[in-house]
Amino acid sequence: MALSRDECLALDAGDPLAGRRELFALPEGLIYLDGNSLGALPKAVTAELARVAEQEWGQDLISSWNAHGWIELPRQVGAKLAPLLGAAPDQVIAADSISVNLFKLLAAALELKPGRRVVLSAADNFPTDLYIAQGLQTLLGRARCELKLVATEELASALDEDVAVLLLTQVDFRSGRLLDMAALTRAAHAVGALTLWDLAHSAGALPLALDALQVDLAVGCGYKYLSGGPGAPAFAYVARRHHDSLRSPLWGWMGHAAPFDFAVGYQAAPGIDALQVGTPSVLAMRALSSALDVWQGVDLELVRQKSLALAELLITRVADSPALRTLQLASPRDPAERGSQVSFAHPDGYAIVQALIANGVVGDFREPDLLRFGLTPLYLRYVDVWDAVARLERVVAEGLYQRPEFRSRARVT
Amino acid sequence: MALSRDECLALDAGDPLAGRRELFALPEGLIYLDGNSLGALPKAVTAELARVAEQEWGQDLISSWNAHGWIELPRQVGAKLAPLLGAAPDQVIAADSISVNLFKLLAAALELKPGRRVVLSAADNFPTDLYIAQGLQTLLGRARCELKLVATEELASALDEDVAVLLLTQVDFRSGRLLDMAALTRAAHAVGALTLWDLAHSAGALPLALDALQVDLAVGCGYKYLSGGPGAPAFAYVARRHHDSLRSPLWGWMGHAAPFDFAVGYQAAPGIDALQVGTPSVLAMRALSSALDVWQGVDLELVRQKSLALAELLITRVADSPALRTLQLASPRDPAERGSQVSFAHPDGYAIVQALIANGVVGDFREPDLLRFGLTPLYLRYVDVWDAVARLERVVAEGLYQRPEFRSRARVT
Repeated sequence: MALSRDECLALDAGDPLAGRRELFALPEGLIYLDGNSLGALPKAVTAELARVAEQEWGQDLISSWNAHGWIELPRQVGAKLAPLLGAAPDQVIAADSISVNLFKLLAAALELKPGRRVVLSAADNFPTDLYIAQGLQTLLGRARCELKLVATEELASALDEDVAVLLLTQVDFRSGRLLDMAALTRAAHAVGALTLWDLAHSAGALPLALDALQVDLAVGCGYKYLSGGPGAPAFAYVARRHHDSLRSPLWGWMGHAAPFDFAVGYQAAPGIDALQVGTPSVLAMRALSSALDVWQGVDLELVRQKSLALAELLITRVADSPALRTLQLASPRDPAERGSQVSFAHPDGYAIVQALIANGVVGDFREPDLLRFGLTPLYLRYVDVWDAVARLERVVAEGLYQRPEFRSRARVT
Repeated sequence: MALSRDECLALDAGDPLAGRRELFALPEGLIYLDGNSLGALPKAVTAELARVAEQEWGQDLISSWNAHGWIELPRQVGAKLAPLLGAAPDQVIAADSISVNLFKLLAAALELKPGRRVVLSAADNFPTDLYIAQGLQTLLGRARCELKLVATEELASALDEDVAVLLLTQVDFRSGRLLDMAALTRAAHAVGALTLWDLAHSAGALPLALDALQVDLAVGCGYKYLSGGPGAPAFAYVARRHHDSLRSPLWGWMGHAAPFDFAVGYQAAPGIDALQVGTPSVLAMRALSSALDVWQGVDLELVRQKSLALAELLITRVADSPALRTLQLASPRDPAERGSQVSFAHPDGYAIVQALIANGVVGDFREPDLLRFGLTPLYLRYVDVWDAVARLERVVAEGLYQRPEFRSRARVT
């Protein structure tokens, strides 16, 4: 049984995370349920960008690499990310994109497991993860790298001693299904395989415990739940026990032990630094670093509790609405099996999402028929979810989505 | 014989590029001779960053991928870069770092030349270029990739039918020596090899003619002469005749023919788009795009003329100065063999550079003994070069550089 709107307002009034919303710049009147695709702007970022551009770049110019610690940014941002991942510092670096980081870590994982050639993954893993593995397979040949895809349910039984690395995304981008990281990591280790987790839809969405679960490798995204800005730097995690043996295939000067010696021969930097390649965007790093400040003092268990409460409200409101009986829940009903998004299937999903956007509720659409709603507890209120469903009811009950302008597929995202 | 200071002022008054200086935010009183390392801030960039953060990210959020054309940025910035490279559009893309782009293009070049395994380069090429090739050699094994290094003078004679690709940086980062791109490209083609040019110190420094010279592949930097901001996106060029056959080894979703179909199998986008990998930083792309506007209507032949005139002034002023007779020109004396920088060798080069910085002239130091001065004709005046040498004379003549604070090696860049 869903709450009333007044009860939602009361929940917001008592919400220990309520104050965080003030740290974000949100458009007036808009209900934003797409922070799982692009996180909202933390207010402090705009001033930080102006300061970095005018002072650090404009006035202090090249000296800023030292004077303002630009050279430290990938490590420094990594250290800020570490507590959100359940990782002790010095195991996380901000660098490149998820795709490029996956390439580094997949190639490195194969090298760490000589005699094994299989990259095992789920057939419904995020496409770029699979593309990167396909590209590596093509580059190295199947004798050295073979991507093997199975249904998620068959992952455990597909693990054998040919598997070098188990490559999985913890939270499915379509359904929001949350994989059991502890069990799958244990299962991989039981056959001597490494684990490489994609945390794109996990970091900032729920508590993580990479160190405690003995995860080997991970990558993740700065621009979704972490609100680091469109195309923000990604991150990579390497458990400390692999630091001495892991070798990235991308030998760039920023990953050199002494980049400014300009030596002819490559010598990898110790530890996580070896995953750096080229010169990173300072503007993008500073934006992400500033955005991460909104997480200071945040208890991720509270984030998870609120995320699940928002999801429960959304699911029950939709289920209780006669107008919305054509929407079928496409996310796990069990909160323990769900990340911080809720998806519904509807044959007219695309048009409904477009009509909903026109009515001030931003979710997104994923093929073939999914309406996807991301729940970001730092800036989303209970009353927002209540009102979003009210607008969704109107869009569906009044058939607004059947207008031609909502059916044409002009959008790319 | 060098000019007088008044003659420098007269040259500035008659300089057809003089007006461009107003487009840059330069610190009062500072003479900046390090735009070859980090280009100065174009004034318009600060407002553009604020607009992108507040409006596009903050207010329009995820819709900006369509509404503000974020998805087009890598191609759009590439098209803005193309005329600076002497390239027709659709052959240039802004993406990743030089290092990552080198990896893509080196692996692709080897695949384009089956039966050939040698990457030929100069022993004094920029280290990251060599590191990336060393990493690829280690990943693929010497049977598929062997980096062969020779002295620059021996490049032509080292070209043979084992060479898949000739990998060179056009302008040497230490001496500023300018390689003969036309002759070396012809020599490579004569043995059936491809050419991959690193234009880090060329783009924005001198006219380029990639199409006319039949260059195959190139990479370059957005943050030096192009002033795109610290760690700005790099670029990659692929001649149109290779578009159908060239394949990047980094298969990311942004390089997919239809990224938002989220198909399981990778299908490369047509043309230059296939060199995209992950989601790029929109902030970094927008900064670079805005910075490139300062080049609108600029005749690169005028840039080159002024660059050489500034260099001539610098070289003759130093040569004519009794106080500076301990500085030895480390750049080619012939302007036709020099890029847009002038280097001098001095056993106390490091300390002199530090003392000079403390006296308001920013150049930089490169091991083992080089004082390096970059000449950026869009915002550097003749009188700046005159005054820089005056300050350099004082630093050396008065022995200011011998103070302990200028000798300690605390800087990283």
